[in-house]
Amino acid sequence: MKKLINAPEAVLADALNGVAAAHPELKVDHVNRIIYRGTPTRKGKVALISGGGSGHEPLHGGFVGLGMLDAACAGEVFTSPTPDQMQEATKVADSGAGVLHIVKNYTGDVMNFEMAAEMAEAETGVKVASVVTNDDVAVEDSTWTAGRRGVGVTVLLEKIVGAAAEEGRDLAAVTDLATRVNAAGRSMGMALTSCTVPSAGKPTFEIPDDMMEIGVGIHGEPGRHRVPLAGAASIAQQLVEPILADLDFTKGPVIAMLNGMGGTPLIELYLMYGEVAKLLEKAGVKIARNLVGNYITSLDMAGCSVTLLKADDEFLKLWDAPVNTAGLRWGI
Amino acid sequence: MKKLINAPEAVLADALNGVAAAHPELKVDHVNRIIYRGTPTRKGKVALISGGGSGHEPLHGGFVGLGMLDAACAGEVFTSPTPDQMQEATKVADSGAGVLHIVKNYTGDVMNFEMAAEMAEAETGVKVASVVTNDDVAVEDSTWTAGRRGVGVTVLLEKIVGAAAEEGRDLAAVTDLATRVNAAGRSMGMALTSCTVPSAGKPTFEIPDDMMEIGVGIHGEPGRHRVPLAGAASIAQQLVEPILADLDFTKGPVIAMLNGMGGTPLIELYLMYGEVAKLLEKAGVKIARNLVGNYITSLDMAGCSVTLLKADDEFLKLWDAPVNTAGLRWGI
Repeated sequence: MKKLINAPEAVLADALNGVAAAHPELKVDHVNRIIYRGTPTRKGKVALISGGGSGHEPLHGGFVGLGMLDAACAGEVFTSPTPDQMQEATKVADSGAGVLHIVKNYTGDVMNFEMAAEMAEAETGVKVASVVTNDDVAVEDSTWTAGRRGVGVTVLLEKIVGAAAEEGRDLAAVTDLATRVNAAGRSMGMALTSCTVPSAGKPTFEIPDDMMEIGVGIHGEPGRHRVPLAGAASIAQQLVEPILADLDFTKGPVIAMLNGMGGTPLIELYLMYGEVAKLLEKAGVKIARNLVGNYITSLDMAGCSVTLLKADDEFLKLWDAPVNTAGLRWGI
Repeated sequence: MKKLINAPEAVLADALNGVAAAHPELKVDHVNRIIYRGTPTRKGKVALISGGGSGHEPLHGGFVGLGMLDAACAGEVFTSPTPDQMQEATKVADSGAGVLHIVKNYTGDVMNFEMAAEMAEAETGVKVASVVTNDDVAVEDSTWTAGRRGVGVTVLLEKIVGAAAEEGRDLAAVTDLATRVNAAGRSMGMALTSCTVPSAGKPTFEIPDDMMEIGVGIHGEPGRHRVPLAGAASIAQQLVEPILADLDFTKGPVIAMLNGMGGTPLIELYLMYGEVAKLLEKAGVKIARNLVGNYITSLDMAGCSVTLLKADDEFLKLWDAPVNTAGLRWGI
């Protein structure tokens, strides 16, 4: 295993040290492994909290800041944070207007965030709502989930709902918006190579040099099928077709994200975006906004995913609102 | 070779299609392979042009926009653009105030930019100045250069000098600044794995699973020595020590960049930054600003580099000025 780490068991603590050193504008709770904004949540603003296993950076810690999250709980690599972490983040980030938990649909995350919400409500009376993202069209159930997995839409949701929370919308309105964003998005990913979890020390799965995994999950969990390696145009088709088959994206503008899995260089991501854009144009899908880059990754996995989100005027306005985080920044 | 491409010979053209699709705010000349800002250079503003072989993205095309470059010429992967491309970019981007060529010190780039400057001056009378970056302390001469290689400082220079050009400084002042920025910066890189050039179809170099290359170049060219794989703290030391031995960074603030080579995930880059920050603190070096991420890459190489730049008040003010590019964005 070749990684820039000190020891597998120290990866998370060491990485959080780096985040704290690089971002004096954030507050890192090293004991509870929570990344907060540097200033407390504004009175009357709903707090947005997310979290999950590490290894998907910049998700979620890279999205803490004005216009997105108020706090992110970091679990060990590919391991859910504990209810205690989430409860602590909920208590600290709440300004009295309530807290929305943004949870990717993985069994551990869902269970622990639910438990944290109950504990926080019981202990301090904080109002907690939650949204569970489940946008991955690849598989219905998986080794990690009941139902679909939550992937790329989580990034877009954190941006859009984050802007709404900044506007001062109340908890019910923010939750309703989050539910609508999740319902309007679909994703599909693929891998050329496996990731390697530091504590495992070897690739999560074996894949021959001439094969790729279509529909892979962000932990390297199996997808729909393993098929022969193909060119970028064919790969784009194998990602876009299942998405378009699952939801009609032709009735209005969309936000499109071409996301890298962590080990794929930007030149290939742009190349893939070009292929995806061509296919969408042919299918009558109009891209209003886009993101190309590493936003929700799988450690060092080579591969990419496509996310489409139906975006009406409300979503687009919130998308365009200022954001100031390590992972997304504009209008600031 | 596992890559998200259609064919090795189509990589650059296809990637430029993706850039054009993703960035309607830019203008892509597909024939000459030049990325321009969407609007012509403002009258009286010195135009900044850079370029080089592709495979280092976001450098340089990702740094075209307000506050940085006016145009970037893209060569084939790891191959200098031609003098014709550079001449065309120079002619188009000039607003009458002259053009600064920002050239990384590689034999082909230096020769071709020189030829382009002469051709452009002879043909249209445009005033051209140039700066050659040579910040890599790893090796004095290399397989690709006479003298030191130009690496990470190029990113910081394009930002700082870009801000000065926006201020309206004239060509002599912009060139003087660029020379001073280059002189104030040093870099050192390392690789865990080789990159694979698409047209070669196999790794540029072989390296055993238990070894790493210290002082590697951004084309996978050899560094100082090949040593046993070590932990992040040791790697940080092997990068920081040669930099500090080469220039005194203790007399004032510095801008520090922890750059990924393309195949290394963000969690490892933050972890490395934490180690570098610790060493710099111990050495009495004060980090005033930092960047952590993929800024000057080597295709899919796993590894990282450290760049330090002595930054006085002038540099810091220019660093903080608004920038609006695909690769760097703030204050906008």
